[in-house]
This record gives sequence, structure tokens and C-alpha cells, in this order.
Amino acid sequence: LESSRSTQLTPKAVATRQRILDSALRLFAAHGYEQTSMRDVAAAAGCSLGLAYRYFASKEDLVLALYLWLVAQLEALVDDLPAASMAQRFDHLLRTLLPVMAPHRLTLVALSGAALNPLSRAGVFGVEGAYVRRRARAAYVRLVAEATDAPRASEVDDLATVLYGAQLAVVLFWLQDLSSEGQKTDELLAFMHTVFRRLRPLLRLPSMARLLAQFAQIIRPLLGSKRSRSR
Amino acid sequence: LESSRSTQLTPKAVATRQRILDSALRLFAAHGYEQTSMRDVAAAAGCSLGLAYRYFASKEDLVLALYLWLVAQLEALVDDLPAASMAQRFDHLLRTLLPVMAPHRLTLVALSGAALNPLSRAGVFGVEGAYVRRRARAAYVRLVAEATDAPRASEVDDLATVLYGAQLAVVLFWLQDLSSEGQKTDELLAFMHTVFRRLRPLLRLPSMARLLAQFAQIIRPLLGSKRSRSR
Repeated sequence: LESSRSTQLTPKAVATRQRILDSALRLFAAHGYEQTSMRDVAAAAGCSLGLAYRYFASKEDLVLALYLWLVAQLEALVDDLPAASMAQRFDHLLRTLLPVMAPHRLTLVALSGAALNPLSRAGVFGVEGAYVRRRARAAYVRLVAEATDAPRASEVDDLATVLYGAQLAVVLFWLQDLSSEGQKTDELLAFMHTVFRRLRPLLRLPSMARLLAQFAQIIRPLLGSKRSRSR
Repeated sequence: LESSRSTQLTPKAVATRQRILDSALRLFAAHGYEQTSMRDVAAAAGCSLGLAYRYFASKEDLVLALYLWLVAQLEALVDDLPAASMAQRFDHLLRTLLPVMAPHRLTLVALSGAALNPLSRAGVFGVEGAYVRRRARAAYVRLVAEATDAPRASEVDDLATVLYGAQLAVVLFWLQDLSSEGQKTDELLAFMHTVFRRLRPLLRLPSMARLLAQFAQIIRPLLGSKRSRSR
């Protein structure tokens, strides 16, 4: 995991920061997020508690570093998407994103309590995550706007919001999916691809466009930057 | 909270069991699930650790008692549903279920980590929850089969599965919804009602019925009793 922040650090500092972060993610996966203290993290990374705090002011900052890394991966994957339909680009993105997340699967399972607690600073939908959500939504805007079947401009943001929401739902399903080799997740992706392809032509109907706008409006506060604050 | 089990106990034992459970749910809400020990629960309930263990063999059993109470509420609400369309019955159910869950909202937020951890015994989708899921799905089968616009018999189970999944998604959204008075959740319920009403006639198309069956097939292992074991 590398985060944008590390570019301002010396190579040695980058390595230390990385060691602390890796240790934390391993401990979260093994013992749970709440049960892991900064003291545990420092010990596992072989550094002092003071040094650990110099890189990460709190345990939540370790989680945010993981989110930042994940959104950077998402951005890179969207950059590399083929020029194709929205449905194909979305399917392609999910099929490359989940393997990128797979090494952190147990960490993500361990974090799901904090991630889904709207009152936690480590909440995916909380105040601190706003910067991450803004970047993720911007990536989805590109996924939609640069597709071969991009909708009219007024619908790009709505579609980006709904696809971002769908991605979070898929990740949640994938974390629950204990079927061998994530077979059910594969089936879900194929199903979503089919439905998306069939719905795409219907978007030209005003009534469908209205439903899309309504749904985007409902989930936007969770996924958008409305609850953001300046960083 | 009352559970079916308590019917086999003396009135005094019922009261004690209830006091232990209430204390546990309060502590989970206040301090988090992982941070609360059986010792804390016993202390808060004013009883010995040994007595607490007599009623609840583990912390997970306290969570399962909450799930059991919730599913009993769901069953009672489904029993009282008006003779109306599926869309109306589902909307009515959600609008009565969320207020019933509201007093336990902070407990449910605190539990979401354990609830969504497929490896936890307190997982909603885990092995221990299978009995609860079976009862919930049976309630949804009644919601669908006894509606004025009930579908053909072969589709009842698919629709029940999808509605049960939709309910879990709504609850998850509601737990995240910090908008004043849950305004966004209200909007989501109204949106779902609209979509459900519009989709209902389309179910007569074989292609739509196939999509429904496919989707039910994908989520059924999570919601069904496939991973159950005898209790």
C-alpha cells in the first residue's frame, strides 16, 4: 500500500510508514479492528509508539490510508478501461477491482463494523471519508462520460452515483460470499451486466431517466461530498 | 424483548433473563459489541457471571436473542398486513418494521461489524442465523402468497427471497441515514414502492420472470437455509 502522502517523505520514512500500515492491516484482519491498539501496531512494526503516532495520528488514520490506497487503485483501473459501453466498462472495472481488493479481504471484513458505523471516524460514509468518496465519484464520472454509449451530460452524474453505489453493494456481497472461489459474486456480476445492458436503451424514456435521477438523489448524500469538510 | 425460549422459564427467571439481555443491548450500543464482555453484562444486570452464563452461553447468544426478537416482530407485522397488493404490503411492512427497530438502532449500528462478518457466530448471514433467516423467509413467502396480486406459485419463493434481500438493504441504508428524521429512508421507501408497482405487470413477461429467478438464485444462499444446521 502506498498513499499519496508518502511522496513528501524520505525513502526511509516511506518504508517505516509502510511497515506500520502493513502491520496494522494484518492485525486488524487477525484480531479485529476494535481489539487492536496503536500500541499493538507499533510493537508489530518494531517501532516505538511515538513513532507510530508520528505517521498516523490515530487508528482511524490507518483505515483512511487503506481507503486512500483503494481509491487510487480504482482511479488507475478506470484510467485503463477500454473504450467500450458503460455496461462493459463497469463489468470490466469490477472484475479487476475485486482481485486488487482480495489480499485485504479479511481486513475489510474486520473493518466492516467501523466502515458501516456512520458515527465512526473510520466510517466509509462518515465525514472523514468525504475526500475518498469525492475521488471515487469523479472516477465513476469518467467511467460513464468516456464510454462509447455515454448518456446526455445531464445524466452523467446520476449514472456515476448509481454505479458507485452498485460497486459498494457488490463489495459488501463479495465480503459475505463464502461460496467456493466467490462463484456467487461471479454470478452477480454477470447478472448485473445483463440487466445494465438491457436497461441502457430504456434510459431514453423520460420516465426511466426520472427514476434514475430520483434514485441518485436518494443515495447521493451517502456517496457524495455533501457532508464533506475541507481537508 | 421477549424470545420464544422464555416461555419455558418461571416468571422470575424470565425477568432475570430479560434484565441480562436488556443490559447487554444497552452496553453494546454504548461501548460497542467487541468492547463489551459477559462480565460487563452481568455487572450491569446486577447478577453473577455464572448466572448470566446460565441464560446466555456466550455473547453471540445475546445477539441471536435480539435477532430472534426481531424476526418475531416481523412475523407479527406480516400477520397484520392488509389484504392488498404485494407492493402495498411490502411498503406497509417496512414502514411499521423500522419504528419497531428504532429503539435498538444504536445497538444494531454497534452490531453491524459482527452482523456482517460471515465468520462471526453473530453474523446475520452466518451458520447460527440460519434458523432466524428461515423464519424471516417464511414470513416473506406469506407476504407474497397472500397478496391480492400474488404471482404464480412457482414465483412466490423467488419474490419472497428478493423482498427479504431488499428489506435487509433498506435496514442497512436506514442505519447509515443521518438525515433529519430519516428523510432519505422515507424517500427510498417511496421510490421502491413506485418501482415495485411499475415492475409488477412486467413479471408476466418470461424474460422478466427469468431475471427474477436468476437474481433470487444468486442471493438465496445468503438469505436461505442452505448453510443451516439443525438446532
